[in-house]
Amino acid sequence: MGGIVLGDNQYGKAETHVVRVTRSGARDDIKDLTVSVALAGDFAATHLTGDNSRVLTTDTQKNTVFAFAREGIGEIEDFGLRLARHFVGESGAVERARVTIEDHPWERIDGHAFVRAGSEKRLATITCTKDGAWVVGGLTDLVVLKSAGSEFWGYPRDRYTTLPETKDRILATAVTARWRFGGTQNDWARSFGEARRLLLEAFAQKHSLSLQQTLYAMGEAALKAIPEIVEIRMSMPNKHHFVVDLSPFGLTNENEVFYAADRPYGLIEGTVMRDDAPDAGLAWG
Amino acid sequence: MGGIVLGDNQYGKAETHVVRVTRSGARDDIKDLTVSVALAGDFAATHLTGDNSRVLTTDTQKNTVFAFAREGIGEIEDFGLRLARHFVGESGAVERARVTIEDHPWERIDGHAFVRAGSEKRLATITCTKDGAWVVGGLTDLVVLKSAGSEFWGYPRDRYTTLPETKDRILATAVTARWRFGGTQNDWARSFGEARRLLLEAFAQKHSLSLQQTLYAMGEAALKAIPEIVEIRMSMPNKHHFVVDLSPFGLTNENEVFYAADRPYGLIEGTVMRDDAPDAGLAWG
Amino acid sequence: MGGIVLGDNQYGKAETHVVRVTRSGARDDIKDLTVSVALAGDFAATHLTGDNSRVLTTDTQKNTVFAFAREGIGEIEDFGLRLARHFVGESGAVERARVTIEDHPWERIDGHAFVRAGSEKRLATITCTKDGAWVVGGLTDLVVLKSAGSEFWGYPRDRYTTLPETKDRILATAVTARWRFGGTQNDWARSFGEARRLLLEAFAQKHSLSLQQTLYAMGEAALKAIPEIVEIRMSMPNKHHFVVDLSPFGLTNENEVFYAADRPYGLIEGTVMRDDAPDAGLAWG
Amino acid sequence: MGGIVLGDNQYGKAETHVVRVTRSGARDDIKDLTVSVALAGDFAATHLTGDNSRVLTTDTQKNTVFAFAREGIGEIEDFGLRLARHFVGESGAVERARVTIEDHPWERIDGHAFVRAGSEKRLATITCTKDGAWVVGGLTDLVVLKSAGSEFWGYPRDRYTTLPETKDRILATAVTARWRFGGTQNDWARSFGEARRLLLEAFAQKHSLSLQQTLYAMGEAALKAIPEIVEIRMSMPNKHHFVVDLSPFGLTNENEVFYAADRPYGLIEGTVMRDDAPDAGLAWG
Repeated sequence: MGGIVLGDNQYGKAETHVVRVTRSGARDDIKDLTVSVALAGDFAATHLTGDNSRVLTTDTQKNTVFAFAREGIGEIEDFGLRLARHFVGESGAVERARVTIEDHPWERIDGHAFVRAGSEKRLATITCTKDGAWVVGGLTDLVVLKSAGSEFWGYPRDRYTTLPETKDRILATAVTARWRFGGTQNDWARSFGEARRLLLEAFAQKHSLSLQQTLYAMGEAALKAIPEIVEIRMSMPNKHHFVVDLSPFGLTNENEVFYAADRPYGLIEGTVMRDDAPDAGLAWG
Repeated sequence: MGGIVLGDNQYGKAETHVVRVTRSGARDDIKDLTVSVALAGDFAATHLTGDNSRVLTTDTQKNTVFAFAREGIGEIEDFGLRLARHFVGESGAVERARVTIEDHPWERIDGHAFVRAGSEKRLATITCTKDGAWVVGGLTDLVVLKSAGSEFWGYPRDRYTTLPETKDRILATAVTARWRFGGTQNDWARSFGEARRLLLEAFAQKHSLSLQQTLYAMGEAALKAIPEIVEIRMSMPNKHHFVVDLSPFGLTNENEVFYAADRPYGLIEGTVMRDDAPDAGLAWG
Repeated sequence: MGGIVLGDNQYGKAETHVVRVTRSGARDDIKDLTVSVALAGDFAATHLTGDNSRVLTTDTQKNTVFAFAREGIGEIEDFGLRLARHFVGESGAVERARVTIEDHPWERIDGHAFVRAGSEKRLATITCTKDGAWVVGGLTDLVVLKSAGSEFWGYPRDRYTTLPETKDRILATAVTARWRFGGTQNDWARSFGEARRLLLEAFAQKHSLSLQQTLYAMGEAALKAIPEIVEIRMSMPNKHHFVVDLSPFGLTNENEVFYAADRPYGLIEGTVMRDDAPDAGLAWG
Repeated sequence: MGGIVLGDNQYGKAETHVVRVTRSGARDDIKDLTVSVALAGDFAATHLTGDNSRVLTTDTQKNTVFAFAREGIGEIEDFGLRLARHFVGESGAVERARVTIEDHPWERIDGHAFVRAGSEKRLATITCTKDGAWVVGGLTDLVVLKSAGSEFWGYPRDRYTTLPETKDRILATAVTARWRFGGTQNDWARSFGEARRLLLEAFAQKHSLSLQQTLYAMGEAALKAIPEIVEIRMSMPNKHHFVVDLSPFGLTNENEVFYAADRPYGLIEGTVMRDDAPDAGLAWG
């Protein structure tokens, strides 16, 4: 047995929930974010001896998030860049700062009232070192369903295969998509809006022979139309809808009545990217 | 010590998740429901001796939900009435059937594709006996926030009171509202749409001196405009947003940066009703 | 349409999470509670006009929980009684105070270190008015399973029945049990320990012909042995374990391999009580 | 913009919940597992054209889990190895199979009855290719608390730092630890028992100057005593317990009454390893 050493490590404040109201009289704007910070660098001392002299406390990180929110948030990608750059510059010990943000959407009722717009969340992950910065945008919990235009057949059968082939099934999933940008300056809101629109459109329009094919088509649609995105990673659970056998009750069921199962579920994960995408560096963590 | 006896009891199948697609060529419609059934009646034997001869199994209840869905669902209040009446009629032992439904909303992308429209759910609870029927509609997880027009002051102070008074706070809540109908025949979709619209409007427009006042105004608005509703019960957690003290950082904070807390939270529950409302009977369980 | 009036209402601070350490040198003791308070009474003014002059704020309620914890917690039933009596006495407006407590268990590692002892929680609900007090104890999330000694057959079959009868099934549930005490002074810890032990023992020993029979046997066992308990209410989901059909793979399955389903589930709820139990009054809410 | 290509991808059935009863008359044994499978390899065709001819369906994967459970489960590391090797051997397209297992613990009540032993779960992640195999064991949701023996001071202060230093705080966390084995044959149960015991012991005994120091001490203790483990990765949220300021009520609070906060929380992640550990290969995914 060799000696025992410290390996990779990081620490930070997770899930600081900040709500920022921008007031302009008759009409307020709100941003509702959950912000997580993770710092890596020269933190061996606190692990080995409890010497905290280089440890920017997680409480300070939380305070920093609130103080920076005071200056305005803007797009979450920019807010994350400002925070991550601050942490890298603040402490000689910090070699890498990663800021992950969930943006909870609200719809306006009137000038000062809002209603939560769904469980879907916009995402950003920003990673900075002293030399570089990487921006990943995205969304999660985008739940979609197709009642037609989905088949699944032609798969190999082994001794454990019982699944019947189908030319007509319900396809349902909860999309998590995260896209890497080629640069760190961009019209983030426009990119997000386009990406979301294209993902939905491709899900709806692509005739599906497998969830993998749908995933690829969604990613390809976003990459084709949004030049500033160089790579997109998607995770899509197959939320199974099983046709209920109503024949014991003397009833037919022509793909009309389904049982929506919770577990187990298929989980399809895939990456679509440009063949000339710059190196991902530390973008993905 | 007296003898030991069986008291109130009920049983049933909870959370059958049924998705019903209605197909008409270019355009499908979907209903996505979670249905729970609870039966009460003469079920002493199964408790006392394990004699199940009067127990309509919960598996049968689940099958019944799927079979009834085959005939079409329509509005959830009607679907619940059909189910509850069936269970009362099906078995001499069943004296009361209660069917509770959550309706998960979808928005249309195109003719055959849909995107989940938020975490908000429409609710119905239908209770039937051999002699009567009661219908309760509602909604839950309607998350709303006001960035202005909310005060809280004038409360008594005892030795444990530290809360500062405020003329300007964020008011945020997740509304659960359930409304009792006077009858069992109605344009349920119209009532639901009106109730939701009026609750949102009252939340936004009512200048709030307390969350209780807001709750009452919301219920009153619905009752005033929707004659078929005779009572409305609301549960509204006060999702606290605390102003962050930025003064240690040399920053002001004029109600712009808030910390959204998870727990503890205020919980405000109240009923608004007509003074001539018919007796609630078994409506509320 | 009649006039519109305020009906039943209550408010309070929910889920104040307090941890109390009692220090005695080499050995600390901890209590880890989530405390919810609900007050009812003469609160029409805040609903109708926003006049808060009788509203003991939920923030004050939270502070009170912490301040009372300073004096020591002891058994949660006693802690709840002290709190509920305080709230009734503190404000002329409060006609009923209900305090609900979840007690999160820890096991000792050594004098100052502890490990969480499961997801099971001990419960208490204490209700006080100016004239009376009611104590309900209990537990929740007590997950149990029997691999033998459970049958289910002899139920009626209608056109929607497909469930095969079985003389041997897995029986699994997550017990929530709440028991009403006849008085307000008692050795609460002993009662709790006995009730939990007897519930487990009856679940294990009772040969089960239905989950209802098991539920009744569990409640009866507790009532027979614990004179200070006069009524017990139980809620027991039937966590279905389905035998997997392995015959397509040329394998038998003699009740050995099961699929544990999440939803839907049976839900069995029942009350067992003494026939001379005093009136429940406001005990159950 | 370059061409668009498929990048990393994997798919599989997640969270198959299998319960296996081993019967031997007076005494049954149970294993209660959630098993997730993820396969990677030559799956471009299904993404690009929907050609599923190489796609071992996730339904088949689920069936395989149940069928393999029929032959007995044993230790989860071995069960995972059997499954992962099967998937790699079953299909020429599969280049890497990863099986992740959560083992839900039960305590025996008697020969055929069991009670869930906490929310803590044992973990295993097994990864196989045609040429190699890697085994990672672990546990999650091991919630621990120290009421003494924890300090936090000596950290740098910047303009956003407000945290007071402390020589006496509550330290609480929910440990997730995953340890990599040097080989694929081992007495897994013994290793698990030892690792769990040593992690708890180090948490309790190590006087803590930071949660990072505690994490390192825990990992070091496991590595020192368990030669078959070559690396351990830990994730430990700092579950903050804040001393409640009772001075407004004229009360002292000498670290006795705490508010247990939910969010935000510190998140400490670190690796402890042997300096001669073999290359991790695909162990960690």
